[in-house]
Amino acid sequence: MEKRTKLITDYFQHLQDQICNALVETDGKGHFQEDTWQRKGGGGGRTRIMEKGAIIEKGGVNFSAVFGETTEALQQKMGFPKTDFFASGVSIVMHPQNPHVPIIHMNVRYFELGNGIAWFGGGIDLTPHYVVAEDATFFHQNLKKVCDTFHPTYYPTFKKWADDYFYIPHRNETRGIGGIFFDRLKAEGEFSFDNRFDFVKGVGNAFAPIYTALMKKNSAKKYTEAQKQWQLLRRGRYVEFNLVYDQGTKFGLETDGRIESILMSLPELASWKYNFSPKAKSEEAKTLTYLKKGIEWI
Amino acid sequence: MEKRTKLITDYFQHLQDQICNALVETDGKGHFQEDTWQRKGGGGGRTRIMEKGAIIEKGGVNFSAVFGETTEALQQKMGFPKTDFFASGVSIVMHPQNPHVPIIHMNVRYFELGNGIAWFGGGIDLTPHYVVAEDATFFHQNLKKVCDTFHPTYYPTFKKWADDYFYIPHRNETRGIGGIFFDRLKAEGEFSFDNRFDFVKGVGNAFAPIYTALMKKNSAKKYTEAQKQWQLLRRGRYVEFNLVYDQGTKFGLETDGRIESILMSLPELASWKYNFSPKAKSEEAKTLTYLKKGIEWI
Repeated sequence: MEKRTKLITDYFQHLQDQICNALVETDGKGHFQEDTWQRKGGGGGRTRIMEKGAIIEKGGVNFSAVFGETTEALQQKMGFPKTDFFASGVSIVMHPQNPHVPIIHMNVRYFELGNGIAWFGGGIDLTPHYVVAEDATFFHQNLKKVCDTFHPTYYPTFKKWADDYFYIPHRNETRGIGGIFFDRLKAEGEFSFDNRFDFVKGVGNAFAPIYTALMKKNSAKKYTEAQKQWQLLRRGRYVEFNLVYDQGTKFGLETDGRIESILMSLPELASWKYNFSPKAKSEEAKTLTYLKKGIEWI
Repeated sequence: MEKRTKLITDYFQHLQDQICNALVETDGKGHFQEDTWQRKGGGGGRTRIMEKGAIIEKGGVNFSAVFGETTEALQQKMGFPKTDFFASGVSIVMHPQNPHVPIIHMNVRYFELGNGIAWFGGGIDLTPHYVVAEDATFFHQNLKKVCDTFHPTYYPTFKKWADDYFYIPHRNETRGIGGIFFDRLKAEGEFSFDNRFDFVKGVGNAFAPIYTALMKKNSAKKYTEAQKQWQLLRRGRYVEFNLVYDQGTKFGLETDGRIESILMSLPELASWKYNFSPKAKSEEAKTLTYLKKGIEWI
């Protein structure tokens, strides 16, 4: 068991390094500020934040590996027994300066209980301020390629799961153009533990090439003040999703997690206007028509 | 029963008018945009929003009166039986331009079930970006004056209730300097229905004189870019409270309320910086020391 958790945390730490390096190189100006922190009950993390980059306005690439006894909150919220647990993962959110560069989020995580039950979870989703079909298709194709390497059911299943998860019921809008989401992937049936772990590695490794390509393609595009305003309104929706619905955020707030690491997902600036509705047939109105479940981008 | 609900809704509508008039007069530039809306199950509301005033950057003064059968959600969340209900109230949030003018919130409401059980609830609390002891004392003294007219236990009880309610556990901070909060005030014992209603009228009528005084006193004060930045960060906390903890907001989002009326409480602009901490002994640091429960301002 210990050998396995070491393999996994080593990979997650390596993934954090790899992604930070790729983002710094592509951004060209920003750097990551690192804070390491300890958890009272056991373990800790390595939070890395970039603010005021050339392309990235604010973002975080966080690693953590925590262990101990399942708390009351964990037992109730997750339906866990009272037992030892180990949890590790990498969480990323990037808010770019330029409204033509999409917001991206990724999380990959591993959970293990003292009774030997263990699983992976995670997801990656894209939130363009302006949906560009070509970029959406590029994003989904890359995720499908990773999924298809491991199992033909992965992409359709996890794509639908993302549509359902990254959804804002009170707005009747998806957060963005989705991606993939998965949870409680155990070794079972035809799926070995190695299949699951390799899949998670595939997802993790796909992040940097996908997002740096989108940064390079879009970050030099010109934008107007009105487009920047629209970006701030879309970020408002991102804040609504993260504070009201995101399970990881809720879980962190309720279980006394490290608040500044959890809330790195919130943007530098966000805006709310009363009852704002974009002009008919505008690019903004077109984007809203894409914020629906069930769109097949491939 | 019908006569009583008419008296109450008439008062709430009158209160909305009175407060809007006072705010428009004091602001000197802004006006309220009114949207009336209908609720499918019965009733509706009158939402009034001010944006880009001279003093008020964004704010709302909302009236609603809704009725029908208690929904599943109402039964579960509020522990109500399946019965007719009637609910009416006025909700206000004001986000000023100038960081030296505090954010204010008030809600007064009435709830009645088909079985005859009826009660009032509400509250008023102040969120200064910079806590000024003189203004905090003025605010609490005015609330105490209203409370003391009706019962000596009101102010101490409702002041403590506000400290506990307007609190952000994950930040270990109160939202601001509190005020009063009360709920399920029924006719019982020495408290007649008229006592409860007159108290709620007292609270409602106190809003305009209190807030217009604070607007007049502070809105001409000069402020720096750094003070404006601090205001945006404090608004970020306001967003956190409203989306994560505020019962009215949660209730509205979960019961398919009119979203744009509910989320009028969110500011035009809010900001999050990673792990921000003000300089020692600065005005910002001093303000943080006041965001605690149990401070007696009188």
